[in-house]
Amino acid sequence: MNSKENDNFISETALVNFCVGVLEKIGVPREDAILASKNLIEADMRGVYSHGVVRFPIYVKRILDGGTNPKAKPFIERETRTTAVLNGDNGLGHLVGIQAMQLAIDKAKEGDCSFVAVNNSNHFGTAAYYAEMAARQNMIGFSFTIGAINHMAPWGGAEAMLGNNPFAIAFPTREDFPVVLDMACSVAARGKIIVAAKEGKPIPPDWATGPDGLPTTDAVEALKGFVIPVGGPKGYALTMAVGMLSTMLSGAAFGRDVGELYEKTATAQNSGHLFGVLPVASFDDLDAYLDRMQKGMSDLRTAKKAAGFDRIYMPGEREHISLLSAREAGIPIGPC
Amino acid sequence: MNSKENDNFISETALVNFCVGVLEKIGVPREDAILASKNLIEADMRGVYSHGVVRFPIYVKRILDGGTNPKAKPFIERETRTTAVLNGDNGLGHLVGIQAMQLAIDKAKEGDCSFVAVNNSNHFGTAAYYAEMAARQNMIGFSFTIGAINHMAPWGGAEAMLGNNPFAIAFPTREDFPVVLDMACSVAARGKIIVAAKEGKPIPPDWATGPDGLPTTDAVEALKGFVIPVGGPKGYALTMAVGMLSTMLSGAAFGRDVGELYEKTATAQNSGHLFGVLPVASFDDLDAYLDRMQKGMSDLRTAKKAAGFDRIYMPGEREHISLLSAREAGIPIGPC
Repeated sequence: MNSKENDNFISETALVNFCVGVLEKIGVPREDAILASKNLIEADMRGVYSHGVVRFPIYVKRILDGGTNPKAKPFIERETRTTAVLNGDNGLGHLVGIQAMQLAIDKAKEGDCSFVAVNNSNHFGTAAYYAEMAARQNMIGFSFTIGAINHMAPWGGAEAMLGNNPFAIAFPTREDFPVVLDMACSVAARGKIIVAAKEGKPIPPDWATGPDGLPTTDAVEALKGFVIPVGGPKGYALTMAVGMLSTMLSGAAFGRDVGELYEKTATAQNSGHLFGVLPVASFDDLDAYLDRMQKGMSDLRTAKKAAGFDRIYMPGEREHISLLSAREAGIPIGPC
Repeated sequence: MNSKENDNFISETALVNFCVGVLEKIGVPREDAILASKNLIEADMRGVYSHGVVRFPIYVKRILDGGTNPKAKPFIERETRTTAVLNGDNGLGHLVGIQAMQLAIDKAKEGDCSFVAVNNSNHFGTAAYYAEMAARQNMIGFSFTIGAINHMAPWGGAEAMLGNNPFAIAFPTREDFPVVLDMACSVAARGKIIVAAKEGKPIPPDWATGPDGLPTTDAVEALKGFVIPVGGPKGYALTMAVGMLSTMLSGAAFGRDVGELYEKTATAQNSGHLFGVLPVASFDDLDAYLDRMQKGMSDLRTAKKAAGFDRIYMPGEREHISLLSAREAGIPIGPC
């Protein structure tokens, strides 16, 4: 979406203020409402509309229905000097995630690596947000989460037992954005299948299976089935690993115990995450690392281009360009 | 390959002894030769023939040609109580990897998480081997490495600038094997394209590009081009992240600086790895974690099966079954 396609733009401030107002009205303390809204809306600004304000109604509904605690006070259940388990007190995942990553960063201030596992949380938006918090402190940041709905079958299965579990890894750079991998484990987002089904169009054979667990090009059948993981059995193992990292250390829900974000709105999801940081300066002088990063990025950017391409982007670079543009021009809003 | 297809089996002991004999003859100390050979041959026993004894000739050639140091003594370049950079002294990657992961495990003995970055190493075999070392100590283990050859172009590129970088994550379980994800980032191994080219067969359109960076089904063209990452741009970002994790903290080679395992046999590769461990008991009682793992695995295994499937495997389970069978029946050897 760009300004030529849509004349409706809203400024970051206006959209944040709107969300803050709603959240305060339903019981979220003002400071928390601001933090959560900024986190949420950064996704829209980065062009990741699937994880931005489009999700706001379900977060509100879950608070109204009692499924999420608006006044949550996350607390540490167990810790060592370099690890912790944070209980999210069933708060908004955006707030729990920030608190957990900040705890990991704080524990790493003396040069240790640190990991914080989280239980009793909720959908936290984009994984990149938390990994980037670490990168801004000159730490490599890891962010893993269990998906809020099971959309994937185990390899050889025909029953939704796994989330399309996202994770992010962010690297500090000398540029004004970190290199950041942020991916879920399916070939295509389920949203794309919904669009194809509405338009009566077929889908590529590697996007989804029907309810029998076998690949289908029929979008309607696909919606009764399961999304296919990247690389087939590789992606199955990957989403399982991300899901286990996010839940097994903390006791968050996995497998049959995972709820349904949009349906069981009165029930706590017990979502889990894992955050980790590696402080660069513990491994080498920061400048030496940053030099290497610039050299590596330059190698990739100056590679010969494929036919039809005139630029190679770093992971996270397109999102950063979108963010800068949204700061300038506002966030595009679709027709209501 | 199983006993019905091939009558030539060799016992683990005989194959290890053979490799130890060769390595000793070319200057590797006996204890190191035993460690490296056991690591190498475990890959064959696990059915991962691509990373087993088939690679032995190139390891030997690199030592003979001066590209790898047979008497390496890896040493710590920098460390904190929970991190380290290990210089591999250009030794066999199998030995450097074991030493680095053991260092991470030792640093985590008091309950800390720990990460060890490695430079000046070489091809280390399977990533799973090291992650499993941690799992056997009731720690979640991470193992990342840069590939020893650049076979992948950045997304939008047409120049080999990235390895097909493998990584592994292993989880302790109550069963006699850990759950272990071990994957490289391409859709298909380059070896499969070589086979198709030899047989004059086409390849699926998502396996590789030609030299212009655009997808091709012509296996011969594909060998002049690049392997395609899983999930397209997702896999590009993933292999880049794994490569950066494996090199940027330690100063190992990345991008244009990556050598070529099979060609520049007189030159050190300066390969990099990253190993990490999360001790389960720092996060929760070990039994509680193990209970959750069993429940999670049971959820997945008991999922309704897809048409044509009668069993769902955990990642690493097939390899473990292969290992048990190889202990009993020996390792299958192809015709010479």
